[in-house]
Amino acid sequence: MPATTDFTIDSLGPCHVPSPVHTDDFVPDGERILHDVCLDRVSDRLARGEEPPSFERAGPRREIYFDPTKTKAAIVSCGGLCPGINDVIRSLVMCLHYRYGVRNILGIRYGYQGLIPRYGHEVIELSPSVVERIHEEGGSFLSSSRGHQDVGEMVDALERMNCSILFCIGGDGTLRGARAIAEEILARHLKIAVVGLPKTIDNDMCYIEKTFGFETAFTVAVNAIRSAHLEAKGAPNGIGLVKLMGRESGYLTANAALALNDANFVLIPEVPFDLEGDNGFLEALHRRMATRHHAVILVAEGAGQAFFEHDDARDASGNKRLHDIGSYLKERINGYFHDRGDEVNLKFIDPSYIVRATPANASDSIYCTLLGVNAVHAAMAGKTNMVVGKWNNIFTHVPIAAVTSRRNQIDPDSTLWQSVIEVTGQPRRMVNG
Amino acid sequence: MPATTDFTIDSLGPCHVPSPVHTDDFVPDGERILHDVCLDRVSDRLARGEEPPSFERAGPRREIYFDPTKTKAAIVSCGGLCPGINDVIRSLVMCLHYRYGVRNILGIRYGYQGLIPRYGHEVIELSPSVVERIHEEGGSFLSSSRGHQDVGEMVDALERMNCSILFCIGGDGTLRGARAIAEEILARHLKIAVVGLPKTIDNDMCYIEKTFGFETAFTVAVNAIRSAHLEAKGAPNGIGLVKLMGRESGYLTANAALALNDANFVLIPEVPFDLEGDNGFLEALHRRMATRHHAVILVAEGAGQAFFEHDDARDASGNKRLHDIGSYLKERINGYFHDRGDEVNLKFIDPSYIVRATPANASDSIYCTLLGVNAVHAAMAGKTNMVVGKWNNIFTHVPIAAVTSRRNQIDPDSTLWQSVIEVTGQPRRMVNG
Amino acid sequence: MPATTDFTIDSLGPCHVPSPVHTDDFVPDGERILHDVCLDRVSDRLARGEEPPSFERAGPRREIYFDPTKTKAAIVSCGGLCPGINDVIRSLVMCLHYRYGVRNILGIRYGYQGLIPRYGHEVIELSPSVVERIHEEGGSFLSSSRGHQDVGEMVDALERMNCSILFCIGGDGTLRGARAIAEEILARHLKIAVVGLPKTIDNDMCYIEKTFGFETAFTVAVNAIRSAHLEAKGAPNGIGLVKLMGRESGYLTANAALALNDANFVLIPEVPFDLEGDNGFLEALHRRMATRHHAVILVAEGAGQAFFEHDDARDASGNKRLHDIGSYLKERINGYFHDRGDEVNLKFIDPSYIVRATPANASDSIYCTLLGVNAVHAAMAGKTNMVVGKWNNIFTHVPIAAVTSRRNQIDPDSTLWQSVIEVTGQPRRMVNG
Amino acid sequence: MPATTDFTIDSLGPCHVPSPVHTDDFVPDGERILHDVCLDRVSDRLARGEEPPSFERAGPRREIYFDPTKTKAAIVSCGGLCPGINDVIRSLVMCLHYRYGVRNILGIRYGYQGLIPRYGHEVIELSPSVVERIHEEGGSFLSSSRGHQDVGEMVDALERMNCSILFCIGGDGTLRGARAIAEEILARHLKIAVVGLPKTIDNDMCYIEKTFGFETAFTVAVNAIRSAHLEAKGAPNGIGLVKLMGRESGYLTANAALALNDANFVLIPEVPFDLEGDNGFLEALHRRMATRHHAVILVAEGAGQAFFEHDDARDASGNKRLHDIGSYLKERINGYFHDRGDEVNLKFIDPSYIVRATPANASDSIYCTLLGVNAVHAAMAGKTNMVVGKWNNIFTHVPIAAVTSRRNQIDPDSTLWQSVIEVTGQPRRMVNG
Repeated sequence: MPATTDFTIDSLGPCHVPSPVHTDDFVPDGERILHDVCLDRVSDRLARGEEPPSFERAGPRREIYFDPTKTKAAIVSCGGLCPGINDVIRSLVMCLHYRYGVRNILGIRYGYQGLIPRYGHEVIELSPSVVERIHEEGGSFLSSSRGHQDVGEMVDALERMNCSILFCIGGDGTLRGARAIAEEILARHLKIAVVGLPKTIDNDMCYIEKTFGFETAFTVAVNAIRSAHLEAKGAPNGIGLVKLMGRESGYLTANAALALNDANFVLIPEVPFDLEGDNGFLEALHRRMATRHHAVILVAEGAGQAFFEHDDARDASGNKRLHDIGSYLKERINGYFHDRGDEVNLKFIDPSYIVRATPANASDSIYCTLLGVNAVHAAMAGKTNMVVGKWNNIFTHVPIAAVTSRRNQIDPDSTLWQSVIEVTGQPRRMVNG
Repeated sequence: MPATTDFTIDSLGPCHVPSPVHTDDFVPDGERILHDVCLDRVSDRLARGEEPPSFERAGPRREIYFDPTKTKAAIVSCGGLCPGINDVIRSLVMCLHYRYGVRNILGIRYGYQGLIPRYGHEVIELSPSVVERIHEEGGSFLSSSRGHQDVGEMVDALERMNCSILFCIGGDGTLRGARAIAEEILARHLKIAVVGLPKTIDNDMCYIEKTFGFETAFTVAVNAIRSAHLEAKGAPNGIGLVKLMGRESGYLTANAALALNDANFVLIPEVPFDLEGDNGFLEALHRRMATRHHAVILVAEGAGQAFFEHDDARDASGNKRLHDIGSYLKERINGYFHDRGDEVNLKFIDPSYIVRATPANASDSIYCTLLGVNAVHAAMAGKTNMVVGKWNNIFTHVPIAAVTSRRNQIDPDSTLWQSVIEVTGQPRRMVNG
Repeated sequence: MPATTDFTIDSLGPCHVPSPVHTDDFVPDGERILHDVCLDRVSDRLARGEEPPSFERAGPRREIYFDPTKTKAAIVSCGGLCPGINDVIRSLVMCLHYRYGVRNILGIRYGYQGLIPRYGHEVIELSPSVVERIHEEGGSFLSSSRGHQDVGEMVDALERMNCSILFCIGGDGTLRGARAIAEEILARHLKIAVVGLPKTIDNDMCYIEKTFGFETAFTVAVNAIRSAHLEAKGAPNGIGLVKLMGRESGYLTANAALALNDANFVLIPEVPFDLEGDNGFLEALHRRMATRHHAVILVAEGAGQAFFEHDDARDASGNKRLHDIGSYLKERINGYFHDRGDEVNLKFIDPSYIVRATPANASDSIYCTLLGVNAVHAAMAGKTNMVVGKWNNIFTHVPIAAVTSRRNQIDPDSTLWQSVIEVTGQPRRMVNG
Repeated sequence: MPATTDFTIDSLGPCHVPSPVHTDDFVPDGERILHDVCLDRVSDRLARGEEPPSFERAGPRREIYFDPTKTKAAIVSCGGLCPGINDVIRSLVMCLHYRYGVRNILGIRYGYQGLIPRYGHEVIELSPSVVERIHEEGGSFLSSSRGHQDVGEMVDALERMNCSILFCIGGDGTLRGARAIAEEILARHLKIAVVGLPKTIDNDMCYIEKTFGFETAFTVAVNAIRSAHLEAKGAPNGIGLVKLMGRESGYLTANAALALNDANFVLIPEVPFDLEGDNGFLEALHRRMATRHHAVILVAEGAGQAFFEHDDARDASGNKRLHDIGSYLKERINGYFHDRGDEVNLKFIDPSYIVRATPANASDSIYCTLLGVNAVHAAMAGKTNMVVGKWNNIFTHVPIAAVTSRRNQIDPDSTLWQSVIEVTGQPRRMVNG
């Protein structure tokens, strides 16, 4: 639950510059958005004298902290590709330039590496003409990288470049890094705001109702499922196996399954399953094949990790290194049917890079635009160590500490998962004993 | 504001059949979702002893009203096409069949006409195999029609067919019709539930945060804007003019403008504008052409109706007949520049039918699926005279009377419209005096 | 039939510079491609001592005319938009730069207007980095215009700019202009080559087996037909009417009809039809509606011009101004059914601007690339007053005079039209008497 | 070179039924299409008294062999999926039914397995209503399988089902099977025509200028290249590696490379390359990375097989089993840079199943329709042991023996490959010594 305390860094001092933004709709700083919208629970809490958990509402402030004419902002994107990164970059630049009149905007290349001199990545000057059409292409205009860098060196770089604001586009690891930077800045008594834009194609970020690019991602993933279905139907005893993103959560996989309705099994990290045994997945798959002679299986990359030996390997982003459940399932399925003397034709599709590199669709594009606008409002108002989120369809400010406290996961009793069970027809439980 | 009173029709009596739905997540009937999520306003109201406005939460009930084995449901779609109608029909059928075991499902063809014997439209028996793949195609599998029909005759038909449930997919006019049907049913002391599924491509339905098909619609509309932009740049003094749907609201137009960022003027019903005069649209267009030599204009069909003589003509759906602002603007713009001795090349694009007939994209497809599921839960629980909606990302029940009480409109001070002003660069006000 | 005589302009003198192109596959100048590929007809002609008609084969020549280091080339695009223009421009620039080492390449803006000083359009310096990604967008990177300009003034401009080569991307009118320019150049004894790239979305250019952008165009047109079909099925007695490009020929319309198979009537300029009478179109439409209750009609813009009073109006490109057959049919169809007392719901779709402004699909993109490459080979070898075409899948040189001598039209006995008759089920003849 | 002799099986006797097809454009049986269209070579041959190689022209014959009212046709599709199979099936059924009045049409399921009783695959009755919309979906409506079956058993099945015609949709292996069936039929003195429809996504079929689905395939492959490019640019020293179909030829890979222009290396079976050494691929890749810091590599699956130990393994279709060059390159590239102490980020994309399962685009859809129509004309006229092809844009009959005699391959001196070299900028030769 996000702390309800303010996260404007006091050391930045009170706001004192009138906002140049043209609007009659400034958001007062104290306005807060309820986390839980159930009438009874809210009124019970209030009746008990508790303040219900809530988020600070995002939006333009009447007074801002940074003088636009003296403000230099920097933008960095980290981690894997995701649809919409360029829309966010574009929106940040456009809003800084046109609404606030900020003229110094730097693009940091290759993620946090770009703040470390020894990598030798040059910064890019960003302006409306540079970013005007970058949203029509996928990927990251600034390029990206994974992995931690030395926090002191990064803050040194920000100081050296005279940056007042750093926008960090990235996921869990990136935001932990942003938090470390913000805290080092405070420790040095610098006046630099650090504002995060939450990127994860897994859509499992805590206190953020939807991450950008997620809709585009499951839209594109649907094509792979369609192909898997046609391949499965196209051969005798055909099986289409599709691996999708989702390290700790199955949102992408579940949504893609619902959007097309061609999957027969959806395997996600939140719902454990056995392979063997009467209630296990392989037996269920066998029953499906015996009656329908083809099957489509979706598996999130983080599903079934219990089948592997435990180890502590981590990737450059500091994430636990996942074992390849896709190849493992392929082998186990082929082995199972081979042992039974049945021929199956299994086709394995991994569309991950195609999904990640797609440009944002129209809906995500708008979402990215508004995330960027609200990030600029927050930064100019002197907010720091926070990310811009959305809750109940309203843009919010959330402390980085809250966002990175844990991952969202699908509740097996939720409407979402129940609908997946229904459209796939898969057994509710594939666990023995 | 929706009445907070219950709208389960008392005459249907209390629920008494245990639900066959497999879930541990039944929604208790009293659970309500706050309309306003601002912490201060909610606690102020409660402190004053007022109950804040709220919606009944949708979802499966532990006890239901209709015995599935004896239930016959009918589905009708009315009004213009909209992406996702087939997804809704499919979801209703699938949920009725698989979750509740309802085996009698009728498709009423050609809207309310299909309930009137003299039109001679035959009903279709619907089952999972019939609707399995209909969501891959746009349009309405049941066909549709506009216009009112005699309420008594329609209820006669429902009685004759022994229907227990009528699902009405449609917009304002359709839902007013559904309300009249529900009230006639009550007057006759019949046990028939009438549940609406709110369809309007304009996305301006009251107390519904997003109507289905809207995202798909502005996604497709973007293509027309892109074409208009290329045509405008492709000829000397080129102007691209695109007319989009939006009778009383500019949501579709504004979202399409934001998604692509190629429009220079967005004209919507909510923001009046003058054509002539120093502050008028034509002068602003002239300034744009003088500096950039091309321009893209989006106009919602309901914009600028003040330029026409008032009359009271109405179309078959009972909507005020709109004057053709697209052709009018084309003529006025050409005339204005012609009078100045300037050559312009104006290309007028009306993509309406292409937009309407598109299949739902992945995101809308999921939304339609869940709308359908929740409509079935509501109907089986004996809810009537209501529509299934969504608010704060939670599915809700809303009385038809509330939904049809007025239309949503864009607030010119909202972030949405301010963002449009920013991306277009158009004057904040194009009104003289 | 193209003259078999050479059209290298003698005044340019013999080639004398060795080609810098890296290939072992130079095309000898005398190699010719047969027009007719029927074995019997070719051998009969040869037996009679006649040379069968043929085209000069395109491709790199071992010796070229222009010294690349001293060559300045200009590129102009004229007439309406068409998919692939930017691919052609890009390919011309890339081939000039990389294969021949030409460093001076000018982009003439807004068609032939760009060669006339009083319009004040500035030229653009073109290089690989400028054109690198222009093919990802539709439209014309150089913009375009319609209409004739003074030939003397245009040649003055080419002289003033020291151009050695002019590439003209355009249709019938543009190529006639190019021919006039080439002839004025000869009269002035200048050493400037004029090479055309044949652009018409109608695909009716004589001696060119397929014009670029045509495949993309009918691919996109298919979407409009799909919408028309869904709109027709979506309403009682629905009729979808789609107007497509095709001034004198129905290739686009016929191909779009074949690609989807949803059209019931295809009306093209080559196949006259009556509206009234027992065999007329309206009666045939009535029969269709009586049995199937919906219909889709495609009409090429040049069809049915006999229904209008004859006049001689011409548009800026010098084309006969066409009467609006789409609106006329809409009115006549509505009138016909109204007079019979039948209600029909007719939806009229004109997707022309969306079709024209689409980026080339992959297949057209390759075709445009190879057209551009071969145009550069031709120009560098000193060919002039010709266009690059394709025949029997081989790139060719065709005199402009031949290409503009007449338009191709669909033969009603051809497999193409017979297949259209079959997929539509429309009457073979809709003419009375 | 195709034999110029006729391949109508004499045992079928002369045609004697007047064709029911409505056309004035019957093709006389002796009409032949030149293979080589170079004027000089053709006239030289004729001058020497030789008949130049040619193909029998396809099209409707005035007299046909089979009486439509007594004809039963069967359709089978074999081998891997390919865009357009359903368009071909649909067209065969539509033409048989509507043009010839054939009412008995069987769909054989799962390839040649469907003709072998012990597999137990049931046949499907095909009619216009069954196949009406199957072309909107990819895959094979009849399903498919790989591998040989006993010829005698298959002919037994055709006899038992009283089939007069068998249409075989498939590639090299399938057509060899079709030839064996046709020869067994002759040996048994049966009156059954066997007509092939040439399917290979590799587009390397001899004497067929383009195989169906090929355009769609490289269109879709382009998406994978775009993703690879964005992934390569998105990470420090990013490398995108895409494996595409192409067992013995690089047409798909080369065309995809040309269509997008984002590839830096294209590796195909026809152009050998070394990995190591100064002129080798790895060194060339290193030079590219040193200057541009990212690279995109396309590799056809049949390229670089020389790097593997020779073996004779074959797959179910009888094709030589290929070693996985994609994974091999990935390993070698990573190893090479690792040994140098350079970090690279290589992303490997294999879009094969997505490419194969795509529905035909508009252009391929028309091509499939016309292939199907001409196959029906051929079969009804009593042609057998042949496939329908296209040459010089004219549909032709080609003996199966000719089509399967060898594979087409890209000539490294051709315009196609020279254009690939130009757009990629890769070294002309990557071979040492």
